[in-house]
Amino acid sequence: MIGRLTILGLGLLGGSVAKAARAKGLAREIVAVGRRRERLEPGLRDGVVDRISTDVAEGVDGADLCLLATPVATLAELLPTVWRAVPDDAVITDVGSTKAGIVSTAEALARTRPVTFVGSHPMAGSEQSGYAVSRADLFHGATVVVTRTEQTPEGAVKRVSALWEALGGRVIVLEPVEHDRAVAAISHLPHLVADALVDAVVRLDPAFLDLAARGFKDTTRIAAADPQMWREIFQENRTALAEAVGAFRRALGDLEALIAQDDAARIEAELGRIRAVRDGLK
Amino acid sequence: MIGRLTILGLGLLGGSVAKAARAKGLAREIVAVGRRRERLEPGLRDGVVDRISTDVAEGVDGADLCLLATPVATLAELLPTVWRAVPDDAVITDVGSTKAGIVSTAEALARTRPVTFVGSHPMAGSEQSGYAVSRADLFHGATVVVTRTEQTPEGAVKRVSALWEALGGRVIVLEPVEHDRAVAAISHLPHLVADALVDAVVRLDPAFLDLAARGFKDTTRIAAADPQMWREIFQENRTALAEAVGAFRRALGDLEALIAQDDAARIEAELGRIRAVRDGLK
Repeated sequence: MIGRLTILGLGLLGGSVAKAARAKGLAREIVAVGRRRERLEPGLRDGVVDRISTDVAEGVDGADLCLLATPVATLAELLPTVWRAVPDDAVITDVGSTKAGIVSTAEALARTRPVTFVGSHPMAGSEQSGYAVSRADLFHGATVVVTRTEQTPEGAVKRVSALWEALGGRVIVLEPVEHDRAVAAISHLPHLVADALVDAVVRLDPAFLDLAARGFKDTTRIAAADPQMWREIFQENRTALAEAVGAFRRALGDLEALIAQDDAARIEAELGRIRAVRDGLK
Repeated sequence: MIGRLTILGLGLLGGSVAKAARAKGLAREIVAVGRRRERLEPGLRDGVVDRISTDVAEGVDGADLCLLATPVATLAELLPTVWRAVPDDAVITDVGSTKAGIVSTAEALARTRPVTFVGSHPMAGSEQSGYAVSRADLFHGATVVVTRTEQTPEGAVKRVSALWEALGGRVIVLEPVEHDRAVAAISHLPHLVADALVDAVVRLDPAFLDLAARGFKDTTRIAAADPQMWREIFQENRTALAEAVGAFRRALGDLEALIAQDDAARIEAELGRIRAVRDGLK
């Protein structure tokens, strides 16, 4: 049970945490903070938050747990203000898609004041965004990465993990850099590839889009996501993304070479091996 | 109304045509032909076909319309036997994923005996295959490409188009080579890319697959398709596929370069442009 839970940013993720925490009675009081009051008011009207504020210091005052749920690019700007204003024993976490940057910002701040930060990344996005599409069951069955470094108190990892588990998530604890490499491969690379697929068809002949069936639509669905959010993610995680793109280019090049060589047996063996991996996903 | 409809190959596509034609009363008699009798018997038991045969010549005898629904690689072998055995005024069509090869085989056969062939490609596949997953509504709302060359009688294009429209499809008439370029871009390229995406993660670290969320699963769903079928498609359409892969590499390379240059405005503009294209898909 959390005394006061403050959520900064009441969009898809922040709104879903508020709705789920309220529905499950996980916090005595839920406070929402945001730059624009009108973006927070629906949460108050729905009864999923108890109080709203456009002032960060006021909003995080007395909070036991602070959740930063703003876009990736604003997390680093926001963190110092939150850091100065929270109680000594508060735990701060976030929902950002990349973790090395924010964790190192937090560890630098910890040298000025010993507050605890544990990074979180609930893998439950959507191509839609905003409070209007937030849902109490968004994290049900979702994988949530929680970060740990040598500086992270084990108790804080447990508190943050317990929150996500209570919201229905399946928690995996990773080092921040390892997290960033993993999401570059499993999330950011597929996104970039979906964008390039759509653009490739435009370059060949936009009329070909008339033939788009379920396969193309599924493969490129994530290309309909918010351009600003994804621009920020690509920039933030560009080192790990470049590594993942390299592995992808080699995998594509090897398949291409087998097709160019008309090597039926090896093409089929490779497709069979890849299918078995894909079938193995839960 | 078709007098006798003969379907060669009673898998997902052949079975679905049989079920839909039966449900809509489009043919007086439906005959299924295949190499193995036990693969045809479920159709007879379900009452979706009236007669089955493992002999091609016997099966197509007296047919008004012959539909070849076997895998791409066996179409070219099967066509000469069908060609010799059909009545003079029969129309032959198929469901193959590539069209230039089969249409040119048919036009060579037409110089020996004037029978009419019109290529078809119903874009309503699935990662599953076989009669057991065939459905009367498979073509409902699906795009179906019907081919036309200078040698194709307009009446035959109309007859074949009318069949697909009666089954619920939306018909687009294209030249065979144009069809192959279009499906290379919109279907075969996404497939190859999905395979390479799965393989890239395996190369980086198979443990990263634990983090796979909806985005990765959607983007790679088609990588779970039948390896033999896709090996045949990739080989059959390798020229057009190579062109599409080239356009994709350029699109990916341009996005990569913008990210490497940290050019926020241009990354966001490109993602916005691509999103608008993706959103425009019906």
